[in-house]
Amino acid sequence: MFESAELGHSIADEVYKKETPALREALLDVQFDLAEAKNFPVVILIGGVDGAGKGETANLLNEWMDPRLIHTCAFGPATEDEAERPPMWRFWRELPPKGKIGIFFGSWYTSAILENLDGKLRKKLDSHLNDIVHFERMLTDEGALVIKLWFHLSKKQQKNRIAELEANPKTRWRVTEQDKQHLKHYDAFRTLTGHILRETSTANAPWMVVEGFDANYRSLTTGKYLLETIRKRLDSKTPPPRKAAAPALALAAVDGLNVLNTLDLSKSLDKDDYEDQLEEYQGKLNLLTRHEKFKQISVIAAFEGVDAAGKGGAIRRVTQALDARIYSIIPIAAPTDEEGAQPYLWRFWRQLPRRGRVTIFDRTWYGRVLVERVEGFCSTQDWMRAYAEINDFEEQLINHDIVLAKFWLHIDKDEQLSRFKSREETTFKRYKITDEDWRNREKWDEYQQAVCDMIDRTSTEQAPWTLVESNDKKYARIKILKTIYEQLDRKLDSLK
Amino acid sequence: MFESAELGHSIADEVYKKETPALREALLDVQFDLAEAKNFPVVILIGGVDGAGKGETANLLNEWMDPRLIHTCAFGPATEDEAERPPMWRFWRELPPKGKIGIFFGSWYTSAILENLDGKLRKKLDSHLNDIVHFERMLTDEGALVIKLWFHLSKKQQKNRIAELEANPKTRWRVTEQDKQHLKHYDAFRTLTGHILRETSTANAPWMVVEGFDANYRSLTTGKYLLETIRKRLDSKTPPPRKAAAPALALAAVDGLNVLNTLDLSKSLDKDDYEDQLEEYQGKLNLLTRHEKFKQISVIAAFEGVDAAGKGGAIRRVTQALDARIYSIIPIAAPTDEEGAQPYLWRFWRQLPRRGRVTIFDRTWYGRVLVERVEGFCSTQDWMRAYAEINDFEEQLINHDIVLAKFWLHIDKDEQLSRFKSREETTFKRYKITDEDWRNREKWDEYQQAVCDMIDRTSTEQAPWTLVESNDKKYARIKILKTIYEQLDRKLDSLK
Repeated sequence: MFESAELGHSIADEVYKKETPALREALLDVQFDLAEAKNFPVVILIGGVDGAGKGETANLLNEWMDPRLIHTCAFGPATEDEAERPPMWRFWRELPPKGKIGIFFGSWYTSAILENLDGKLRKKLDSHLNDIVHFERMLTDEGALVIKLWFHLSKKQQKNRIAELEANPKTRWRVTEQDKQHLKHYDAFRTLTGHILRETSTANAPWMVVEGFDANYRSLTTGKYLLETIRKRLDSKTPPPRKAAAPALALAAVDGLNVLNTLDLSKSLDKDDYEDQLEEYQGKLNLLTRHEKFKQISVIAAFEGVDAAGKGGAIRRVTQALDARIYSIIPIAAPTDEEGAQPYLWRFWRQLPRRGRVTIFDRTWYGRVLVERVEGFCSTQDWMRAYAEINDFEEQLINHDIVLAKFWLHIDKDEQLSRFKSREETTFKRYKITDEDWRNREKWDEYQQAVCDMIDRTSTEQAPWTLVESNDKKYARIKILKTIYEQLDRKLDSLK
Repeated sequence: MFESAELGHSIADEVYKKETPALREALLDVQFDLAEAKNFPVVILIGGVDGAGKGETANLLNEWMDPRLIHTCAFGPATEDEAERPPMWRFWRELPPKGKIGIFFGSWYTSAILENLDGKLRKKLDSHLNDIVHFERMLTDEGALVIKLWFHLSKKQQKNRIAELEANPKTRWRVTEQDKQHLKHYDAFRTLTGHILRETSTANAPWMVVEGFDANYRSLTTGKYLLETIRKRLDSKTPPPRKAAAPALALAAVDGLNVLNTLDLSKSLDKDDYEDQLEEYQGKLNLLTRHEKFKQISVIAAFEGVDAAGKGGAIRRVTQALDARIYSIIPIAAPTDEEGAQPYLWRFWRQLPRRGRVTIFDRTWYGRVLVERVEGFCSTQDWMRAYAEINDFEEQLINHDIVLAKFWLHIDKDEQLSRFKSREETTFKRYKITDEDWRNREKWDEYQQAVCDMIDRTSTEQAPWTLVESNDKKYARIKILKTIYEQLDRKLDSLK
């Protein structure tokens, strides 16, 4: 991985001075075009060996280009707010919007490197790297241009650098104990990072290794690489139009059975049973949220369902059991313009609860494989890859001790019709029924197919879907409350 | 303040049961109208005596209304991220957007109460309360409906409540040591909060004191008060059209002198001096940012100026002195839709730097009294009150150990013309000149008047404006660098 970056590259000062003005000009132009087009963001990762010019390069790029269109971020130890969310949260927060450049200093690779310097955890490492590859794949699929720069020094160059700094009284202070420690572990570091770079150098987000010893060589190489990569992307054809007919992922079962039409929608509860159980499970759920260990976890309840299936009413039966100070409800509507300038999942990441809190999503990230698929709001490609992206997302939630309860509220077509009609007759404006509701109803079968595909592809052992028979609202509400209670109870039990 | 809330109000169960269904219906309707109109947010503060029903009321409102349109927030001890910003930052972050209701539990009153329970700091308290009045005035001027509810119990009721809870083995656990302590200090608390409520009960944001002992009375009163207040606001006439001719705040000086036209724009530096001083002050500034004490403070540099005065170039000379990992540049353009749904200053509050960081604003919150005033983007009322709001804002920055450097870059009309022309001749797209630039130029005199008013009204001892003679770019850049260096140096010196 590092062979070409240990050749002792260098560029003479006069060459450097001659070439830089045109390069800077071109970089400014490309940056301006990027900002004007607002088609995609540029994510630049900067990694490498100590003293190989990482900081200098970040500074140089800000000097050569217009720093107003660059956001440089460095990551130290996680703050309290960060530590209460899954590890990737802090990086999601700093992603540049379309048209801008983000320079990441100390990125999602840092922990993979630090945790494996002893060379022991190769298996865990590979799973970690796999997660990184998935994440970057998502970024590039979402349109981001991901540029990964690794600045390298050979062992000899590193030794020379430290010796030179130490020899000069003016620069001696720059050599820290850490530098010396790192030099001692140079070989292990080289082996580890070589492995990491190879495993994560993908077609869509390759690593570029730059020899860092000679500043002229390093700067020119970096500048030209950025220029070429961004320009090429700007010049490339725009992606095919988003509207596309949505094919079935698989043939509908030839016997006509599916997970929805085999639900027993006649399930119901009588009023007394309902009231008893409502009180019972609301009380039990409330007690769990006051449990000492509840402060160690978070809860996310995700609600999807047929129009008029009763999501709102069910959510209120859940929140009645909770103190208003610990929950938030996030109704998912059209993205804001800030959200629209980011990858699809960004608007859900930003809402993740801190410890001891509950977030309820009224409609969710599954919109991508439901309404966006059926209505053609995104390309087939986009929703096809969304299953895997969602599974990755939810895995991170669960690994971070977030209890995730996902509900599909189902009613049949007749029940929907009667609820639509009774809503049309009611005087309460908040229940008004729109043309859109009727239009969606016409696509009933397509939606059913999308739901079946969704459940097949995203119901995992750790984040299973709960299908809720909702023709009877009382039955549905109790099933939901009970499910949340049980998932939470299991989780709290599992904690030490 | 509390007399009417110690009368032993109560409502019989049958009355309560009879009245609530219609009240809930009406509350849902008003909430729906609020969400549909999206004209203003509703900020509900909940405060009061222990056990007077604060938590119960927050829960009840979420139960009676649609919790998806309510954001309830509670504030514990500041998190690390919060502690690194001025105290009001955490509240700004939670403000509801237009069309939504935010319930604040433990608001900006909490510290005023906690810090003064010993009854000693009356003078500091009054200044604190004055800040609160200003803040709420700003909220209501920006259109927010601010509803402040205080739940009260007389001393006797408080004693009875605690005694009753203790008498019952099932509820005994609910009486904490804190409850008993608070009861001991009941009189001091009553005196203090009475004073606070009186001082902060303004025409635009009055307190409503509710006797909390009888739950029926408390709930009906709260519900009806909310209903009436929100409905009245919804029904009130829309404010007058925003466009309005901008009067001069004061007569232009009859001798024609002002702070801009008395600047000596012939000031300049030759190239050698410039390069020497550039290196000197960039080096000095860089050293200060590496100072141990720099981690205790933050820096904000705010740039305003005539079009083509050279803000961009000046900013780059500053950032060259800084490590890219510690600064952000925020170019201020049109607000995003999330920003547009909030009070004017919200989009600046969200960008405040943490400790050890520098934020550079390329155009600033002064847009309100410059472009928005001159172009009539806001009403005369709006920009007239902005001076005081901005002074309040900046005072909070300074009190939080943020170094604030504000620059007005000035060039004369001839210099602007020649820069516009030379920009038109250049091929670099990023320097293209727009029709808007020419249009703004036609309003030169109006802009000058706005700038003079701005400087007079917002140049305070702690946050002075630095007027930068910028006909010579070299002179301007050095003056800016030197000013930031000196302000920062003074601040670091002043720290223990």
